[in-house]
Amino acid sequence: MDAEIIAVGSELLLGQIVNTNGRFLSQQFAEMGINVYYHTVVGDNDKRLQDAVDIAKKRADLIVFTGGLGPTKDDMTKETISRMLGKELVFDQEALQSIEAYFTKSNRVMTENNKKQALVLEGSDILANDHGMAPGMVLTVENITYMLLPGPPSEMEPMFLKYGYQTLMKMMDKHERIESKVLRFFGIGEAKLETVIEDLIEKQSNPTIAPLAGDGEVTLRITAKHETKEKCEEMIAAAEKEILSRVGQFHYGNNQTSLIKELVKELTVRKLTIAGAESLTGGMFQEQLTTIPGAGKVFKGGIVSYTNDAKSNVLNVKNKTIEQFGVVSEECAIEMAENVSTQFDADIGISFTGVAGPDTQEGKPVGTIFIGIAFRNGKSLAKKLSLSGSRSQNRVRSVKYGCHFLLQEVNNLS
Amino acid sequence: MDAEIIAVGSELLLGQIVNTNGRFLSQQFAEMGINVYYHTVVGDNDKRLQDAVDIAKKRADLIVFTGGLGPTKDDMTKETISRMLGKELVFDQEALQSIEAYFTKSNRVMTENNKKQALVLEGSDILANDHGMAPGMVLTVENITYMLLPGPPSEMEPMFLKYGYQTLMKMMDKHERIESKVLRFFGIGEAKLETVIEDLIEKQSNPTIAPLAGDGEVTLRITAKHETKEKCEEMIAAAEKEILSRVGQFHYGNNQTSLIKELVKELTVRKLTIAGAESLTGGMFQEQLTTIPGAGKVFKGGIVSYTNDAKSNVLNVKNKTIEQFGVVSEECAIEMAENVSTQFDADIGISFTGVAGPDTQEGKPVGTIFIGIAFRNGKSLAKKLSLSGSRSQNRVRSVKYGCHFLLQEVNNLS
Repeated sequence: MDAEIIAVGSELLLGQIVNTNGRFLSQQFAEMGINVYYHTVVGDNDKRLQDAVDIAKKRADLIVFTGGLGPTKDDMTKETISRMLGKELVFDQEALQSIEAYFTKSNRVMTENNKKQALVLEGSDILANDHGMAPGMVLTVENITYMLLPGPPSEMEPMFLKYGYQTLMKMMDKHERIESKVLRFFGIGEAKLETVIEDLIEKQSNPTIAPLAGDGEVTLRITAKHETKEKCEEMIAAAEKEILSRVGQFHYGNNQTSLIKELVKELTVRKLTIAGAESLTGGMFQEQLTTIPGAGKVFKGGIVSYTNDAKSNVLNVKNKTIEQFGVVSEECAIEMAENVSTQFDADIGISFTGVAGPDTQEGKPVGTIFIGIAFRNGKSLAKKLSLSGSRSQNRVRSVKYGCHFLLQEVNNLS
Repeated sequence: MDAEIIAVGSELLLGQIVNTNGRFLSQQFAEMGINVYYHTVVGDNDKRLQDAVDIAKKRADLIVFTGGLGPTKDDMTKETISRMLGKELVFDQEALQSIEAYFTKSNRVMTENNKKQALVLEGSDILANDHGMAPGMVLTVENITYMLLPGPPSEMEPMFLKYGYQTLMKMMDKHERIESKVLRFFGIGEAKLETVIEDLIEKQSNPTIAPLAGDGEVTLRITAKHETKEKCEEMIAAAEKEILSRVGQFHYGNNQTSLIKELVKELTVRKLTIAGAESLTGGMFQEQLTTIPGAGKVFKGGIVSYTNDAKSNVLNVKNKTIEQFGVVSEECAIEMAENVSTQFDADIGISFTGVAGPDTQEGKPVGTIFIGIAFRNGKSLAKKLSLSGSRSQNRVRSVKYGCHFLLQEVNNLS
């Protein structure tokens, strides 16, 4: 089945909202084994919507519409489809009753245009709207299936999951499944990674291997198609094994995880506590740690030592260290990490000091960053970075590198 | 000018990412007076991309592409356009040098495929990429203008704002200007704000007034069209005056500002320094402060006291206070603010303590938050919030309320 998703609504073309419906349905279709080759966004305009449908009919056998089912004059999706397919709009009694009940219940007067929402294409299968008024509908005409869904994600998503999904699975009556797994890497660039596994990507057909880069990280999505879930997983595992034999040292997790989540997970398992001392990152490492519910089990707290005074007076970094090496130094990073772990009685101290930009500092270029790591009764070390991004990128990547280095150190403990 | 925006990338069709580029460009075009009639999303597939361009050529005279300019084999936007238009791809020396410099600076080996990013369509105007490697380009062939932009929003948005916008404005050479101003409000809901100025919105035609809500803030965008900039500004000023006469007490700034930027601005002007003590917000207030270059003039640093131990041992909150009132209390918030300002020798201390969720704490419901403010040699106070969002929303809104309360206090100083 080849699908096209058409989002109808001028507010999308004015940039007032973003087409999250396209994303949601694409995710669902990818999992269901339905190919999505195009998304189209078109405004509340009868002629242009008709043109978009004419184009979609030539390249898809499933056309899914979101939006344009509401009560106002702007809403015209089903009216346009009705005319194009020569199918009358008729009242769906259940939808009508549910709309009337809604207004009675909320003590509001039902205006006449609200009734319009109960009109459906004759002969279509109705998808009930449990979170709003306009029902969805599915209709197949001349081997093309039209699925009309409401625009608000709060109505569309549950409607699709509860009713639309089953309807399509039944129609397809097919046994092929699609499974995928995302491998996450840090510390290697997209181009480098792709060069190393180029032959695997080139010969891709089933499973496929697709790289994606963002924010200093790279992911590889492995997608397999087969009749059984077991066989899919087997094919994915084989590809994963081959990939990891080449770039395993940069792999940190799978699917919906992140470096900070992996760090919290690892510290929790090992019952280790942590405290942070941050300069250029201004608290970002600690803020990210505490986005995770349950971080309180491993995170004690920390200090944002944004000025040299704060480093010496609050964090107790020796004046001699600052005078001799500067605050942007391996020595200062290590002292910061050691001192913060002592002050907060934590097993591990981690520190971030460096030049985020735009100005240089202590004659050291923008992007010079030291990350200190100190273990209670154990070793201390510092890693140097030379980043070349904007101030914001340098801060974000420093935190990611901090998690990356610390994960490496913690994994080496046992 | 009628535009179509084509986003290229299979990751969009798989639902891995959402097309925020379509939204951003649509907003920009709406302001520039360029009509956007369609968005199209197409995968990394030469044939389907070509089909999409053939369709767009029939219905648009400006076709804007996002994505597919990267170094990998998947990236094929400029190769496809090159072939369709019969324009060679040639190396842009400036882009090539900047790519080489990037790799030299970051001490990484440049793989051959990275050079590909410096290839541009012959005869096109180049849009420099200040935040990445692939330059953008603009080329007009047979009365249709093609604009190619990179996919990552962190590269595309600044490139468009700094270079793409001007290029299009010059090409249009039109005399009607469009000017807009965004008024920002905090502490009032969207529905309430809209009710208060409903009559102004209803009679809107020129200037128009459009409300938009998000993350606890509401903005009003006033947009005026006229031949001269002066007249536009006059029209905007009149609308602004009327709006502020009704809801001026909630207005905190205009256009691309934020509560935290206004706070840094105000503290800088008044030469006041600040330190922060954070519990539920985990460093978010300090992290946001330090996103702003020059924050070092006002921000001394602070403490993330995530555990009760950290509050008493590092931040020196009295055990008696914690035992008697709990850490989620007015009394604890005030002590935290007072102590952090003393420890960091700052003019102002601000503190955040409360229950972010999902679990309750000290028998106090999720969303109970106290914000403490202490002035050196001056008054101390605490404000209580009862928020009803998710953990993440409660943290974000706490920081915004903190800025809001502190701005009010600081503005009352003189």
